Amino acid sequence: MQAITLFDSRLTVQPDWPRPIPGPDEALIRVTLAGVCSTDLELVKGYAGGFNGILGHEFVGVVEQTGSPDNGDWVGRRVVGSINLGCGRCAVCLQDGPEHCLQRTTLGIHNRDGVFADWVTLPVVNLFEVPSEVADEEAVFTEPLAAAVRIREQINIRPTLRMAVVGPGRLGLLVAQVLALGGGDVTVLGRRPSSLDLPEQLGLKTDLVDNLPDNTFDLVVETTGNDAGFAHSSRLVRPQGTLVLKSTFQGNADINLTKLVVGEINVVGSRCGPFAPALRILAASAVAGPAAPSGMAVQVRPMIEAEYTLQDGLAAFEHAARPGVRKILLRPG
Amino acid sequence: MQAITLFDSRLTVQPDWPRPIPGPDEALIRVTLAGVCSTDLELVKGYAGGFNGILGHEFVGVVEQTGSPDNGDWVGRRVVGSINLGCGRCAVCLQDGPEHCLQRTTLGIHNRDGVFADWVTLPVVNLFEVPSEVADEEAVFTEPLAAAVRIREQINIRPTLRMAVVGPGRLGLLVAQVLALGGGDVTVLGRRPSSLDLPEQLGLKTDLVDNLPDNTFDLVVETTGNDAGFAHSSRLVRPQGTLVLKSTFQGNADINLTKLVVGEINVVGSRCGPFAPALRILAASAVAGPAAPSGMAVQVRPMIEAEYTLQDGLAAFEHAARPGVRKILLRPG
Repeated sequence: MQAITLFDSRLTVQPDWPRPIPGPDEALIRVTLAGVCSTDLELVKGYAGGFNGILGHEFVGVVEQTGSPDNGDWVGRRVVGSINLGCGRCAVCLQDGPEHCLQRTTLGIHNRDGVFADWVTLPVVNLFEVPSEVADEEAVFTEPLAAAVRIREQINIRPTLRMAVVGPGRLGLLVAQVLALGGGDVTVLGRRPSSLDLPEQLGLKTDLVDNLPDNTFDLVVETTGNDAGFAHSSRLVRPQGTLVLKSTFQGNADINLTKLVVGEINVVGSRCGPFAPALRILAASAVAGPAAPSGMAVQVRPMIEAEYTLQDGLAAFEHAARPGVRKILLRPG
Repeated sequence: MQAITLFDSRLTVQPDWPRPIPGPDEALIRVTLAGVCSTDLELVKGYAGGFNGILGHEFVGVVEQTGSPDNGDWVGRRVVGSINLGCGRCAVCLQDGPEHCLQRTTLGIHNRDGVFADWVTLPVVNLFEVPSEVADEEAVFTEPLAAAVRIREQINIRPTLRMAVVGPGRLGLLVAQVLALGGGDVTVLGRRPSSLDLPEQLGLKTDLVDNLPDNTFDLVVETTGNDAGFAHSSRLVRPQGTLVLKSTFQGNADINLTKLVVGEINVVGSRCGPFAPALRILAASAVAGPAAPSGMAVQVRPMIEAEYTLQDGLAAFEHAARPGVRKILLRPG
């Protein structure tokens, strides 16, 4: 099969890579569509501990085969899959699930081959059937949308909160749309006027980050992963407010923590999220249609920039790394 | 009166400074005993925005006079005083109190003369009568003890939490003793064996911070205010655990935020705390006596290093700045 691999930080399109064989609890999935995430770009740069194997963790596909006939009813279903695989035995797995298992592997990120390939295997417990209303081009956003939904799992998003999302990128726009559901008041903040075009097209409130005075928001979500984004987020959140760190910071950050202590800010780290509510949101939004306003639906299709074949994977990665670019998709076959 | 002033980062013992006059809602307090805090030392170094005036915010004293006869029943009472003075009119003041009022002044820290003097004035709403069981040498710890109690106001300290306090200094030992109340399991962590002598004398569990593996604790309180302390605290807290920042960081910190995001750590900034429960703890601990074990009482007297007169204020500040030193007290008169 074709696959995009990373070995020793070298990205390669492999024309003839061995097709994976599903284990007893696993399914073999033919990948229909996959998405390139910032994490993939960082792994190519050698961050996050040096991944080796097939990259990619955002996907939608169809189950072709299962390792055990007991799971045979999965065959033929259209699925997305959660990306963390825990040991299944430790207290963390048994209580909270695999996301924080210290022995976990993570699809295309840590010790587990990913989805930039014709086929991938995953345990059936990781699979979620995609509702028929949701197109592949929407379902491929399930994983990052779940990460945005995670914030609502961690924090009570009261409808009267004044909220801001720092960073109008791919992740920021999903976060802003998710926070706006249920009557939320959300402003997307960017550094350049042009960076606000897409959020405005999505019907979101926007502003330039330098325009706003200190202590303007009850809740600020930092999605840039850089020092300047942290400084703005820390500045804009009010005393006793909440600052959500939604993007990983590479290496050490050079930041001022005084506001966090003096203002008694609550900082919440936030990572992977639940697939089931993300799929419910995608299904309801598909029914609501592309004209449904922000606050009533999450629009993901306007976030698609371009689509590449696996064979053109290197060009896809180059495109995805350009500043301000939207989502790049990979279509096997 | 005598007073220790700071002007343009220059610390001076003033032999003849004007005695303050209480406003209509204020009391004039004769200071009996005051404590030197790390914040005082930082203000002398020019941090925290360049304070000018009489330093000091930890004190116990006796009310000598009130600005209005309506408050005359305060005269003669032994008091401690909370240190933040809000505008009393904004939403923050009306809802949460003065601690986060954006217009606030802070005793001996920000735009308000402090307590390193023979007399100080404070609004009577800031005063708390000291229970008769509590000696001056204990009551002078009310303000930093309240700051430690603040953690219990912000976080449910479940008795089964595995807790650590990074930094066996003055603040760390108050925090550890407060967290141990109610059945808590607390370990005080230091870098050198000698730094653990006092916490062991106080009956606290101790360990060397380098001895412990990653992810050991559910809750870690950072009390050092330096990058190494943050790195250890972040390393030692388990995924989905809580990291309390109890000490301010001077300038920018060079720190790694990845663990906070990937481990979904909840970071809680924590500052000033409530005086009433701090005084209840001091009163109960005084009754329990010096032999009462950690977990049943908070012992503050072993934390006293030395006592100076106001006249010897410069020597007191030099002593307080030595590494590993315990609490330095100032006694006017």
